Amino acid sequence: MQNRQVVIESLPQDKLELSNFAMRTEPVPAPGAGEVLCRTLALTVGAGQRAGLQGSATYAGAPKSGVVMGGSAVARVEASESNSIAVGTLVTCPAGWQEYSVHEARAVNVVDEVDDPAHHLGVYGTNGLTAYFGLFALGEPQAGQTLVVSAAAGSVGHLVGQMAKIVGCRVVGVTGSEEKCQLLTDTLGFDTAVNHRSPDFRGEFREACGDGIDIYFDNTGGDILGGALRRMKTHGRIVCCGVVSQYDTGAPQPGPRGVPGLLVNNRVRMEGFLVFDYADRYAEGRAQMRAWVEAGQLKPLQDEFQGLEEMPRAFIDMLAGGNVGTRIVRVAE
Amino acid sequence: MQNRQVVIESLPQDKLELSNFAMRTEPVPAPGAGEVLCRTLALTVGAGQRAGLQGSATYAGAPKSGVVMGGSAVARVEASESNSIAVGTLVTCPAGWQEYSVHEARAVNVVDEVDDPAHHLGVYGTNGLTAYFGLFALGEPQAGQTLVVSAAAGSVGHLVGQMAKIVGCRVVGVTGSEEKCQLLTDTLGFDTAVNHRSPDFRGEFREACGDGIDIYFDNTGGDILGGALRRMKTHGRIVCCGVVSQYDTGAPQPGPRGVPGLLVNNRVRMEGFLVFDYADRYAEGRAQMRAWVEAGQLKPLQDEFQGLEEMPRAFIDMLAGGNVGTRIVRVAE
Repeated sequence: MQNRQVVIESLPQDKLELSNFAMRTEPVPAPGAGEVLCRTLALTVGAGQRAGLQGSATYAGAPKSGVVMGGSAVARVEASESNSIAVGTLVTCPAGWQEYSVHEARAVNVVDEVDDPAHHLGVYGTNGLTAYFGLFALGEPQAGQTLVVSAAAGSVGHLVGQMAKIVGCRVVGVTGSEEKCQLLTDTLGFDTAVNHRSPDFRGEFREACGDGIDIYFDNTGGDILGGALRRMKTHGRIVCCGVVSQYDTGAPQPGPRGVPGLLVNNRVRMEGFLVFDYADRYAEGRAQMRAWVEAGQLKPLQDEFQGLEEMPRAFIDMLAGGNVGTRIVRVAE
Repeated sequence: MQNRQVVIESLPQDKLELSNFAMRTEPVPAPGAGEVLCRTLALTVGAGQRAGLQGSATYAGAPKSGVVMGGSAVARVEASESNSIAVGTLVTCPAGWQEYSVHEARAVNVVDEVDDPAHHLGVYGTNGLTAYFGLFALGEPQAGQTLVVSAAAGSVGHLVGQMAKIVGCRVVGVTGSEEKCQLLTDTLGFDTAVNHRSPDFRGEFREACGDGIDIYFDNTGGDILGGALRRMKTHGRIVCCGVVSQYDTGAPQPGPRGVPGLLVNNRVRMEGFLVFDYADRYAEGRAQMRAWVEAGQLKPLQDEFQGLEEMPRAFIDMLAGGNVGTRIVRVAE
């Protein structure tokens, strides 16, 4: 039995290209004692993975030429040498870009059977939990308040906006195209959406914010954060969720004007956030989101590619902002 | 009976100068129905008052040529036409820079008799309450944690550091001279102090911070904030208390590098703060600080000038960083 893989052919010098990856076929590995063999059903890609390709990491398994590209999968257990996990169990695991992978049983997460297993990479996975805890634990939304979210059509942003609507907020999305704006308002029920590539973005953003922002959910940093800071209401909250472009740099960009002056004047709280700190509350978050999804109140969007060989294209396109919702690559039924 | 006053002679064009003020003598006013006549015992000055002299304010009583300079006083009621406040009562009030002032009874705050009434302008006044609530409500200090405070010898900073020591923190002060550093460590019990004018400030600051900062109490913004951000521990708190130089500008300076990237990576909370939001808890703060002062654990520093005519000099010198603790001008016994 064969295991198709996508390996790193070379580390990128500048922009990541398809030629940085290559396909390879290896025999399917056999699980050892306490291990399970997982068959990849779907993979997702995240912008944070790009930082790992800078070539500075030195740990075992670090991205380098000849190594299977890393990545998160939802998978079905095909063979088990563990007493704790039966064949047929649905799991999430750090499979990497390949059809089969072997893991210690404790390294995989058993997940519920749901309509579409790929939701475990989206709404019921890290993206959804990030949206949920960032919004509710840090943002503290109240009915009638105004929430602004950047990268609003992205894997986290599209869920943040919908959940804020569920609890009665007025929701403004900031995104990068007119098509995405329309999706946010027409399909996902955002009150309004603003295209940050519009020539009059500043004016449109100001108008969209109305009398001010109670919660700004920041996935981007930079100019949009700066603009939101100037429009925060007294005691507003800024949830700092993502600035992926800066995670792996030794020289972060200057911060937005008005830090800390505007924070003081308006008593604004700005808080950095990583979802892993909420691991002991994941079940609560998943249960609430599942109830909303099944009631039709929360629509998790997936943006799908078909076939393992599409992984490089799916990744590069996502880095260019091509995705709407969670980018998923289907690998097997 | 005569009332000596300091009036604004002219608004400053650049740096504030003694010649921007003039002395004047008027008759002492008589209180009307429901009013009290207050005799100023001491006045304080704050950097925020400089912003009011920019000339843009248009409200009644705004700083302009010929108007008595505004300011906070502790005062004794000399005559009363109010049933609620007796002659002889100790109060704080917005007296302005003059020996006598008339106020509606509800516009003055009755305060406790204490050893030195001027403490109501320092440790028991806005400065002390700012230190107390900024530290405890936002900073959430725990024994064994490292707290860094900027403008550490200032009216707020010197109290923040001492209170953090009382609850068991390791305390680092950042201040502007070797003399102030010595005062912080030798007299006030700070663990260490760093002079931000030192040629090797960066290295000294890094060393003083040890394995990182749990709480940074920011009175300054700017480069010191930027340096502290890079040394924050996971789940650290930054209390944004003051950036006085930027309160009255339409074009705030760029923020520190690492906002929001470092906030996310280290899950740091950064929160702007004004003490007035804690008005319903002032009694609690005052009572705790008074207990510490009377037990000798908290030493409120006052930096005193004598005589109403010294107000302009006391103010200008304070703007240049000349003060240690709360700057007080004694006007009467």
